[in-house]
Amino acid sequence: MAAKNAKISNAVIKRLPRYRRYLIELKKKGVEKISSKEFSALIGYTASQIRQDLNNFGGFGQQGYGYSVEGLYHEISAILGLDREYRMVIVGAGNLGQAIAKYTHFHKQGFKVWAAFDIKPSLIGTDLDGIEILDHEGMVEYVEKNAIDIGIICVNQDNAQEVADKLCFAGVKGIWNFAPTDIEVPSHVALEVVHLSDSLHSLAYHMNDIQKKGEKNAKD
Amino acid sequence: MAAKNAKISNAVIKRLPRYRRYLIELKKKGVEKISSKEFSALIGYTASQIRQDLNNFGGFGQQGYGYSVEGLYHEISAILGLDREYRMVIVGAGNLGQAIAKYTHFHKQGFKVWAAFDIKPSLIGTDLDGIEILDHEGMVEYVEKNAIDIGIICVNQDNAQEVADKLCFAGVKGIWNFAPTDIEVPSHVALEVVHLSDSLHSLAYHMNDIQKKGEKNAKD
Repeated sequence: MAAKNAKISNAVIKRLPRYRRYLIELKKKGVEKISSKEFSALIGYTASQIRQDLNNFGGFGQQGYGYSVEGLYHEISAILGLDREYRMVIVGAGNLGQAIAKYTHFHKQGFKVWAAFDIKPSLIGTDLDGIEILDHEGMVEYVEKNAIDIGIICVNQDNAQEVADKLCFAGVKGIWNFAPTDIEVPSHVALEVVHLSDSLHSLAYHMNDIQKKGEKNAKD
Repeated sequence: MAAKNAKISNAVIKRLPRYRRYLIELKKKGVEKISSKEFSALIGYTASQIRQDLNNFGGFGQQGYGYSVEGLYHEISAILGLDREYRMVIVGAGNLGQAIAKYTHFHKQGFKVWAAFDIKPSLIGTDLDGIEILDHEGMVEYVEKNAIDIGIICVNQDNAQEVADKLCFAGVKGIWNFAPTDIEVPSHVALEVVHLSDSLHSLAYHMNDIQKKGEKNAKD
């Protein structure tokens, strides 16, 4: 399976959390099995794409039966690595860091925020609904000692690379970067980026593009 | 130019905010012009991809001179629609909504949060660093009256579609969705999605994938 996984494209991986979300909804509704055709109507991908995507992982469907909702949910959860617990720290406990801490802590089963770090004396020693804000000076030692898996970077762009370097040095296996800049990590560390400002700028582009097309159509 | 724009792929659009970020850095450093080769070394795309991307918009480079940093910055800003102001409202003033409000309000020039809306009596009437939290009952009227451009959805997944419908009815031109669910909007409204939980799950996948490959290599 590992060899098979190695070939899976990023596009497929990106779709897996979405499949999983729909499976959770189906489970809630008490649906036990689903065909690729029914799944297609729900999620919007073609039935053939769904079969192709899920075949990447060995194919869980049975001809003439469809997919077991519970079975597929557990398989995808395991593929995504959601059948274990992750220890996380937040670096940068400003507005965004605080929100991500609270959001992730309470909403995401399996992802636990162990601590937050900041440089500001006014924040150090306070807590975010049970998550302690610690002095950034102690970050490397804390991450090593507690075998933290994921570092969430919510500092400003000028400090993001330095924080990433320290987190990687301390042994995290993944970086979730919210700082509005591109950072580099060693190949043994996974990197996932949320660029809020890029996303907002894309939205602005599409709004203007729709408007331009509308004006053009009105003229034609 | 409008006709040309119509063919531009989403992949190119997604790269524009990133080009713009690098141009801001170059401006800060006082760099006035840059060749596609130099830009490539900085941003990581190939020089030919950079030329191809920027040619989509008419090509701002001059043979043997390169790109004017200031000129390219203004062109890309205009293409992205960042040469005007946007009025935004946040719907759902919980942890995430509050953070997005504060983050966007203070950090993004040209994007102004006019108000936030919530259903909770304990939140209504309070304010977020100057952004008033209003009763969601008045949302449609407020959006119409103030010609709000963008609705930012930070409610839970069960209410997201209903909120989107109301915002579109009230006349927003763009929706920025943070609710962990897929929503639909009419074709004249732009939609941009930030799926935090999908992003976290992708990170978990890549962490486990790296680990599996490491174990496989150790065995080989």
